[in-house]
Amino acid sequence: MTEHVPGVRSAAIGVFVGVGSRDETPALNGASHFLEHLLFKGTPTRTAMEISSALDAVGGEFNAYTAREYTCYHARVLDQDLPMAVDVLGDMLTASLITPEDVEAEREVILDEIAMHDDDPDDVVHNLFAAKAWGGTSLARPIAGTAESIRALTRPQINRYYKTRYTAPAMTVAVAGNIVHRDVVRLVRKAFSRNHFLADHDARPLPPRLAEKPRPTKPGEEHTSRPFEQVNLVLGMRGMTRSDPRRYALGVLNAAFGGGSSSRLFQEVREKRGLAYSVYSFATSYSDAGMVGVAVGSLPSKAEEVLDVVRSELTRMVESGLTAEELERGRGQMRGGMVLSLEDTGSRMTRLGEVELFQERLLSLDEVLGRLDEITLDDVQSLASDLFKRPETLAVVGPA
Amino acid sequence: MTEHVPGVRSAAIGVFVGVGSRDETPALNGASHFLEHLLFKGTPTRTAMEISSALDAVGGEFNAYTAREYTCYHARVLDQDLPMAVDVLGDMLTASLITPEDVEAEREVILDEIAMHDDDPDDVVHNLFAAKAWGGTSLARPIAGTAESIRALTRPQINRYYKTRYTAPAMTVAVAGNIVHRDVVRLVRKAFSRNHFLADHDARPLPPRLAEKPRPTKPGEEHTSRPFEQVNLVLGMRGMTRSDPRRYALGVLNAAFGGGSSSRLFQEVREKRGLAYSVYSFATSYSDAGMVGVAVGSLPSKAEEVLDVVRSELTRMVESGLTAEELERGRGQMRGGMVLSLEDTGSRMTRLGEVELFQERLLSLDEVLGRLDEITLDDVQSLASDLFKRPETLAVVGPA
Repeated sequence: MTEHVPGVRSAAIGVFVGVGSRDETPALNGASHFLEHLLFKGTPTRTAMEISSALDAVGGEFNAYTAREYTCYHARVLDQDLPMAVDVLGDMLTASLITPEDVEAEREVILDEIAMHDDDPDDVVHNLFAAKAWGGTSLARPIAGTAESIRALTRPQINRYYKTRYTAPAMTVAVAGNIVHRDVVRLVRKAFSRNHFLADHDARPLPPRLAEKPRPTKPGEEHTSRPFEQVNLVLGMRGMTRSDPRRYALGVLNAAFGGGSSSRLFQEVREKRGLAYSVYSFATSYSDAGMVGVAVGSLPSKAEEVLDVVRSELTRMVESGLTAEELERGRGQMRGGMVLSLEDTGSRMTRLGEVELFQERLLSLDEVLGRLDEITLDDVQSLASDLFKRPETLAVVGPA
Repeated sequence: MTEHVPGVRSAAIGVFVGVGSRDETPALNGASHFLEHLLFKGTPTRTAMEISSALDAVGGEFNAYTAREYTCYHARVLDQDLPMAVDVLGDMLTASLITPEDVEAEREVILDEIAMHDDDPDDVVHNLFAAKAWGGTSLARPIAGTAESIRALTRPQINRYYKTRYTAPAMTVAVAGNIVHRDVVRLVRKAFSRNHFLADHDARPLPPRLAEKPRPTKPGEEHTSRPFEQVNLVLGMRGMTRSDPRRYALGVLNAAFGGGSSSRLFQEVREKRGLAYSVYSFATSYSDAGMVGVAVGSLPSKAEEVLDVVRSELTRMVESGLTAEELERGRGQMRGGMVLSLEDTGSRMTRLGEVELFQERLLSLDEVLGRLDEITLDDVQSLASDLFKRPETLAVVGPA
């Protein structure tokens, strides 16, 4: 998937692999993320140092991240350096060595990364929330794995995961910037032809993960006692899947409820009562599942009042929805944010890659703006009454 | 200061006020940052809600930050919304009410913000490092203040700070994007004419803070025991001022030493030994002072080895400098990064604002690339021998 962006000198490229932490068994927890690290460690023709040097030498941005449903390897470079970036990515994706020595060295790095996340109250509370809400499923487990699962993973396990999961039908390559489509196709075809990677000409993209109805979440409360200065909490309920037609209405609802400094939550929690520095609402969507919720950190003495205010704002939204002014503002916020994001080749690349990986339809800017224009007060209120009345999951992290 | 950027639909604006935490007496510690919060709370013609609504309604990015030497209020909007953004910023900067009620509500928000920073190991170790290195001066104090100083600040103190410091000669307005210079000047002149703010036609910009020689730093060690999973440490020494002509050589040295995944530190600490997930070098410059150093987080069992490796890499750099290949790569990294950053109107705006506020000369891209091209291996090695042999300051945060 490519998009030519007039007036820029850069190109952003992302390789999206449809494999993430939710594809792991409990014993393999953290394998997707471990593998992501190992792909930077070397191929028959490039050492780890040569991989990172190639991109550093041209000032490129170059990184990767692992999510629950996919893993993305991405770079942003000057247009003239795109052929090099494509070749490095193709080499990593199709011909990584995954040596036993590299597995051992990287195991230590990941154990340290897990310790770092464990020192971050925000990461701790969101992981706790996912563990409770998705309890008993692979969505409940932390993306990076646990110290225990990382210590137990073996080189053969990770290598098998690589060989069986990183196949051409599982991948989407997305490029946006000062590029020509057919040139990019030629570069990608060449870079990904190592090891007969593209030999099966009849291969079709893997089918997306779909379910007849969205997965349920587990309601209830979960507390973790940690000697932090703040109490961090996440309160949420089942939301909607990626393909739900009401997602544009959810965007507007989320913006107006807790998405900016004029939002209900920011005004009621921070501006009027000074209860917290950071408070926001969120909506997370997967192929067959989703969550909506509120995240807030506060001094322990104020945590109860914060929770009361958040709950009464949820109720108020269920009962009376948005005002006409809030609807217009939420719509404008989505519209302006979308147009501004188009100036960044990386944002455009990510949009292309996700849409293709999940086999969704790519909407033009005008189509998206049209969808936003159609949203009514009734749409938003019926959405709020549907979502915000669902059973609550609450995660709390802080001093006992 | 403006810059027309062809091919974009956005405009980024920043108001840079030459007042920061280093201008505070111990009793006023945190006043610059407190004031930054209060400027969002209202004017005779706009409530806090109206200020944030105006920018949210058009999807604008809108925020502020306080640094040691200046405070910046910034927005990024579609070009058509720039007149509104200029008017809101002009109103906030020249006519904020700073009511006693707002001071009390925002005091609580800032106390929570300080607690949040106190839960962030990275913030804790960098604050500890600055406290030790700049001990006894205003650069040593945390930008947000302390819980004690914030509790003690009064409305009259903050208001006096506002009235005496936020004057036209202390401000630079920088705009980059799809704009026309004379239109921006007209908008700014109008928006900042409230309260006779521009009445003194003979006013000249405040002189920059300059010193005959760079401020010294205090060597030594400082430890803070906190129940974190990781040990975080910052090791550094006196660096260079903003205007030092060797700053381009320092950029290349910093890139090659600890600025990317092909850098010495990343390779030796993470790739070869698996000792840490995050390790990097930094260079911070002020008008009359500067620091260079290394920051790293690791598991406690590995902290000593990490420190040994970092120290031996510092010594190796002093003794033999960079290889020719590393020099070229560092140069290319700076060059590419600079060209890529020009696609972001926000980066261009920040460059304009800082250069003007500090009364430096704005170099064209070609001039900067020329400076980079001139750097030799000898330049970098003599810089490393000068900087990295200076007395060390070490800050360590982690379990006892």
